[in-house]
Amino acid sequence: MTPADFSGSCPIPISDYPTVQMAHGGGGRLSQMLIEKLFVPAFDNPVLESLHDGAILALGAEGGGPDGGRLAFSTDSFVVRPLFFPGGDIGSLAVHGTVNDVAMCGARPLAISAGFILEEGFPMEDLWRIVESMRDAARDAGVWVVTGDTKVVDKGKGDGVYINTTGVGLVRDGAVVSPERAAPGDRILVNGPIAEHGIAIMSVREGLEFETRLETDSVALYPLVELLLDGLAEGVHVLRDPTRGGLASALNEIAGQSRTGVVLSEDRIPLAEEVRGACEILGFDPLYVANEGKCLAIVAADRAEQALELWRSHPLGSEAVIIGEIVEDHPGRVVLRSSIGGLRVVDMLSGEQLPRIC
Amino acid sequence: MTPADFSGSCPIPISDYPTVQMAHGGGGRLSQMLIEKLFVPAFDNPVLESLHDGAILALGAEGGGPDGGRLAFSTDSFVVRPLFFPGGDIGSLAVHGTVNDVAMCGARPLAISAGFILEEGFPMEDLWRIVESMRDAARDAGVWVVTGDTKVVDKGKGDGVYINTTGVGLVRDGAVVSPERAAPGDRILVNGPIAEHGIAIMSVREGLEFETRLETDSVALYPLVELLLDGLAEGVHVLRDPTRGGLASALNEIAGQSRTGVVLSEDRIPLAEEVRGACEILGFDPLYVANEGKCLAIVAADRAEQALELWRSHPLGSEAVIIGEIVEDHPGRVVLRSSIGGLRVVDMLSGEQLPRIC
Repeated sequence: MTPADFSGSCPIPISDYPTVQMAHGGGGRLSQMLIEKLFVPAFDNPVLESLHDGAILALGAEGGGPDGGRLAFSTDSFVVRPLFFPGGDIGSLAVHGTVNDVAMCGARPLAISAGFILEEGFPMEDLWRIVESMRDAARDAGVWVVTGDTKVVDKGKGDGVYINTTGVGLVRDGAVVSPERAAPGDRILVNGPIAEHGIAIMSVREGLEFETRLETDSVALYPLVELLLDGLAEGVHVLRDPTRGGLASALNEIAGQSRTGVVLSEDRIPLAEEVRGACEILGFDPLYVANEGKCLAIVAADRAEQALELWRSHPLGSEAVIIGEIVEDHPGRVVLRSSIGGLRVVDMLSGEQLPRIC
Repeated sequence: MTPADFSGSCPIPISDYPTVQMAHGGGGRLSQMLIEKLFVPAFDNPVLESLHDGAILALGAEGGGPDGGRLAFSTDSFVVRPLFFPGGDIGSLAVHGTVNDVAMCGARPLAISAGFILEEGFPMEDLWRIVESMRDAARDAGVWVVTGDTKVVDKGKGDGVYINTTGVGLVRDGAVVSPERAAPGDRILVNGPIAEHGIAIMSVREGLEFETRLETDSVALYPLVELLLDGLAEGVHVLRDPTRGGLASALNEIAGQSRTGVVLSEDRIPLAEEVRGACEILGFDPLYVANEGKCLAIVAADRAEQALELWRSHPLGSEAVIIGEIVEDHPGRVVLRSSIGGLRVVDMLSGEQLPRIC
């Protein structure tokens, strides 16, 4: 779409969506529509068009040399409810979410910014707990929080605290990581069991009790990225953290952008028993439930076993598995092969499954 | 303060401030306390310690050469009310605010991110107007919006839309711009009349009518930064856009950080008649009222006239004046010399004068 196509009137059909719905922020089909119809045509530029979780900017000669280097740049706002949940809080989540988006560009995260929108009357002790948690998460991830901003809104115009973090990092030399690089034959790896973050949050909200405590998987993933890039270099085609919208949404996006098909083997997708049980009780499909410590890697077929070994050598990847592959058939679609051989299409989420999960 | 000093308990005295107050976001004394006592000790690192509006990161050899270049990085969240006001809206403000913070590091802004927190039920047409306004402001400022994020919160948990923008830019070769460089004898320039943004917003909120429409001064200021750096190079010591908290707060911060004194000549500070009148009606001191298109430059004494000529050659600086100087006396304090020779201390704002002005 060229700028001439949208002069004046709103590109979202007002008759269908006169106002913003919760699902416009859910990571599914309505989120995608907002991005593709409203934001991308307006902010039309070659960097944005790549529709990655982060942008990659060539620094050019001003960046310090003839090659200049490549900067990865990614932003995320966090509105999770409740603010504190098993295994983490909005602070640690805000650090992990953004350093992971930077890492998924094939970049080593360097620094993040922190922008707070506080609601008048928010307990100072809670703010301190959140800031301590950000400090610890940033230290563990090896990044500095280098700049920030605080705004306060009137009581009733916020929800305690919202946090934006934006991260920068330097793309690793030799890394060429992009959804368009997914190619038929490539294998798809994930570093461990899915759906843990979303279920940890929803269990708290719904007051569910389990024998084992269900905790978020929220963690900084760069160590796994580094292992793969060190070992496979350009053999690493795509990296993605399947957060909001889960595994299904992330793979649908990649299938759409690379115009390839995805086939997943249902019985290989790792899922903890308690999480499976909670999904059944809550009526969620784990493929659509958010992760905050999972990495999808799409790698060249002949490097897949090596990738698996590398990941399994690391605590963050000890449960890594190959869950599927990229195919020429059904471009743009994700298909799940069940344990008894049946096939079903795993579509983009159309409504809002889990509001305010991150 | 070392990390050991704050293990555990909240460093803000809970007996004084058990909860967040509006003034913690006002840019005055309580904002400063939050930054200095809570954020800086927690996120303790050499880049943050400089307490600039933006951070400057050395990119190192990975940045593309032996010198690597220097990255300017700054974040701001925008919660202004109303969303649309004379001369601008939250969208244009969100672009200008952040590209200006990057420019004040002596850097050419390259790209910004945009993070939206939308309230369920927000009119889609209004979102589109805001996005169009961001597009236009970004184009005029010569930056790309390269990455973004959208979250939706439940009705009653937001206020239409909050926007975070975070910007990156490359610090100009040879630029050494930092509050610590303010030195006795330096002259202080401003590029035009003050207090216009804050008064434009407050006039709308209070329903005041004036003969002339009072508009925000919101604009991208990099062209003025470029002129000075091209002409004066290291002769430019400090750059600052006096936004939230106004001229008085910005100069108090600089005085504190450079341990020098500031003397302002009251009759040289440019102020439009209508703005002066509105300040009287509303009971505001214009020195504390926010600007969004004003730049303070602190330059070497022997380059001040040259700086003034350079600025006056440009439409954004046609009303530029020298408003004061840096002195050895009263380090950390800003003093105003009135037209009849009296002196008064211009302190940091202690309460909240103008909530949600940006």
